[in-house]
Amino acid sequence: MDPATVWQKIESEIILLEHLIELLGWDQETYMPAAAVTERAEQGAYLQGRLHRLWTSDETRNLIESQTDNGDPIHDARLRLFRRELKRRVCLPQELVERKARLVVQAQAAWAQARKESRFALFLPHLRELVDIARTTSQLLGWEDHPYTALLDEYEPGATTSELDRLFPLLAAGINQFLERHPGALSLDNQILKRRWRKADLAELNHFVLRSMGFDLQRGRLDETTHPFCTTLGADDIRLTTRYDLNFLPTSLYGTIHEMGHGLYEQGFGKEIQGTILARGTSLGIHESQSRFWENMIARSPEWVSWFTPHLSRLSHHVVSLTEGKDLALAVNKVERSLIRVEADEVTYSLHIILRYGLEKDLLSATLAPENVPEAWNHASQELLGITPGNDAEGCLQDIHWSMGGLGYFPTYALGNLYAAQFRQAMKRDLPLQDLVARGEFQPVLDWLRNSVHRWGSVLSARELVRQATGQELGVQPFLDYLDEKYQALGV
Amino acid sequence: MDPATVWQKIESEIILLEHLIELLGWDQETYMPAAAVTERAEQGAYLQGRLHRLWTSDETRNLIESQTDNGDPIHDARLRLFRRELKRRVCLPQELVERKARLVVQAQAAWAQARKESRFALFLPHLRELVDIARTTSQLLGWEDHPYTALLDEYEPGATTSELDRLFPLLAAGINQFLERHPGALSLDNQILKRRWRKADLAELNHFVLRSMGFDLQRGRLDETTHPFCTTLGADDIRLTTRYDLNFLPTSLYGTIHEMGHGLYEQGFGKEIQGTILARGTSLGIHESQSRFWENMIARSPEWVSWFTPHLSRLSHHVVSLTEGKDLALAVNKVERSLIRVEADEVTYSLHIILRYGLEKDLLSATLAPENVPEAWNHASQELLGITPGNDAEGCLQDIHWSMGGLGYFPTYALGNLYAAQFRQAMKRDLPLQDLVARGEFQPVLDWLRNSVHRWGSVLSARELVRQATGQELGVQPFLDYLDEKYQALGV
Repeated sequence: MDPATVWQKIESEIILLEHLIELLGWDQETYMPAAAVTERAEQGAYLQGRLHRLWTSDETRNLIESQTDNGDPIHDARLRLFRRELKRRVCLPQELVERKARLVVQAQAAWAQARKESRFALFLPHLRELVDIARTTSQLLGWEDHPYTALLDEYEPGATTSELDRLFPLLAAGINQFLERHPGALSLDNQILKRRWRKADLAELNHFVLRSMGFDLQRGRLDETTHPFCTTLGADDIRLTTRYDLNFLPTSLYGTIHEMGHGLYEQGFGKEIQGTILARGTSLGIHESQSRFWENMIARSPEWVSWFTPHLSRLSHHVVSLTEGKDLALAVNKVERSLIRVEADEVTYSLHIILRYGLEKDLLSATLAPENVPEAWNHASQELLGITPGNDAEGCLQDIHWSMGGLGYFPTYALGNLYAAQFRQAMKRDLPLQDLVARGEFQPVLDWLRNSVHRWGSVLSARELVRQATGQELGVQPFLDYLDEKYQALGV
Repeated sequence: MDPATVWQKIESEIILLEHLIELLGWDQETYMPAAAVTERAEQGAYLQGRLHRLWTSDETRNLIESQTDNGDPIHDARLRLFRRELKRRVCLPQELVERKARLVVQAQAAWAQARKESRFALFLPHLRELVDIARTTSQLLGWEDHPYTALLDEYEPGATTSELDRLFPLLAAGINQFLERHPGALSLDNQILKRRWRKADLAELNHFVLRSMGFDLQRGRLDETTHPFCTTLGADDIRLTTRYDLNFLPTSLYGTIHEMGHGLYEQGFGKEIQGTILARGTSLGIHESQSRFWENMIARSPEWVSWFTPHLSRLSHHVVSLTEGKDLALAVNKVERSLIRVEADEVTYSLHIILRYGLEKDLLSATLAPENVPEAWNHASQELLGITPGNDAEGCLQDIHWSMGGLGYFPTYALGNLYAAQFRQAMKRDLPLQDLVARGEFQPVLDWLRNSVHRWGSVLSARELVRQATGQELGVQPFLDYLDEKYQALGV
């Protein structure tokens, strides 16, 4: 077989195995009987093992070593992705990978208990080892500006600590200035969201929204899980999940729209990259930009709420009346200096991320010792959010990410906000965005994203994609301008 | 590695791959988005390919060739199953297997169209080729008494054409004598089943029945599909499906109980064979005996219906009243000389099978040409069932099995009835069956089956299992006696 054919064969098998692994995970979270969990872990390990052997086989390594850039953007991008993944799989010794895999199982259990009892000491030994593994990983993978960059790169290829060190202080300052300019945003009433909702109505609403906004239900579906997610089981099989809180409308509604944003990206990869490793999000930050764009910039806009209110009234059997659109628009934009990241509004959300980023970076450079995390967290919380946790459960123990070994992941959430706002600004140069949304015409909006973002998959890096789609380097101003614009429109 | 370890490693991988293949199938029938079907076919083919390469690898073949019986029943039974499967995989050339795989896709489409138009000619060319492949397969696998035995053996290991030639005429005669003795069975009223049922109530009823009768919902679940089935995704992951007809109670209720019978068997394999290839049904006939036992011999008994009626009344919100138990017991036992196998009652069901058996056998021995199937079918239908189809759609085109290449499968359905009745007869020597059922005490019944049937998995052949559990060779008398006993109790 010629190298191109061998490459395609390996690539197809990698993608197929990844999709099978996602099916196992989706089934586990949705419908799998409880007692099947042990076998499911074995099934997952088997497929992960096959995938790893395929990646690190002589055939794959020789093939990738024999390839050089040839100027064809698809060829070169594939080669970049293959080299990147191979490097990770080859640089990190099997012993380290297995040590981490074992550790995170224990660490998650310890974290859950520690959070329950609000006792950081229970989690501390695991955090020490997780930081140790992260530092070793960083050394093995290498970095230029800061050891944290090596971790960040796993989730946000090409992003650097230096870049975040430049962007995040500007973002934090901008958000705090926004809050000073718009004090009314902090005193909005969201009681309208806390009425009693019927589950069947909420499910119908979710499907109505998915259909209206362009998610292809022939190529995807929506189910219910404890923690919502979007997963790709095939190019034509993109599955979303949501969670229902019958006393709070946004949990399922905005949760669904958030995951739909991820799903629209996954459904929008170009025909020319289908079946290749390029048919995936180019970074977690870009992925998050798509979910945040639809959730916050579209579905929390006054125009969207005004379009949506009659549908909500009808499909909820009048839990909300036709005349309550304005109340609803204010309610879904309530801002609060709060402690819990996953409940944070879109304005203060990034502050939660910047807090975590600072601690993670200092843990990596060993300027912060794991035992001092609670103190450092509380200090940073007061500094950034103006509020100090009453205990570690609502402070440094609130998130699962560290216990899963996910140091380096958090910044992608804040980058998602920045990317989304910058795409929105560029889109508004081409489209009468607000008018379209007010009329419920989402297809031109989706088409713009398809063309400027989705179709490219991983052909372009996040940085290249932003530059091509917006004509500018990534900055914080579009996000800050967007916030001002929205809250002015809301009159607060 | 020593041979025992190698064997265990191969066996574990075979089982894991089989479970993954079942997950793909389950997901496809239950929740998979429509457009994902092409990729799903590739995913299935990939796993089937891996399974085939594993079976036919030098490692597996050398291992099995090096093994000999050692008197340990588990070792010897595993060896028997490995030899059997290896023989099938090695004797049948890849070219034939692929030819059949391609053919059945076309044949199913042609059959569906032929049935729709009731035009046998559309299906005839495919039937010719399917019979040709079946004859070749039979020759390659070898047989002693009749070429049909080689096909039968795939589904009912150890069964022979000679044995069926002895049993089936006795069964047909016995059933027809039964019908002469109990003419009232043919004029029962089943209008009570045709009231309007609510889907949520039917689903609740199904789960009530599953819990009451001992199906472990921690190790399994129930979903909805067009064609009900039971599938095993792991030792602790047995999934049932059912179908809802809101105008006919038995469709979902008895459909669920039928699949539950299969599921109880799969949930009941002994600890000592878990993780081995022996943790599976020893034959399709024995499997079917378990579904028929619970569906017909338990849940259509007057005692069960009398226990069930108050629950039905409550859970259906009084679609059926507390006083209608007797009507219900008669209704679910209505007998009819009808044309369609899948709608047949338990008395006449086997006649439909005997009809197909005769034709299949003659097709294999070439004493019946495929083009003469409609004529032969109609003749046999009149002979056995006393009724002639008005067209081929309700005659020889009614079943999907031939178009799937499943010649040799049908007899297992009738054997299931015979096995079930023989187990029931033996059980009654140990337990006050009817008293237990009348009180809703199903655990002793399940325990008897666990101990006498389920736990053995494939350690014993169907024949050995029947002999051990009942002390007798398989016969037709227990089934005929059971029918007489039930209809006498019903007073018809």
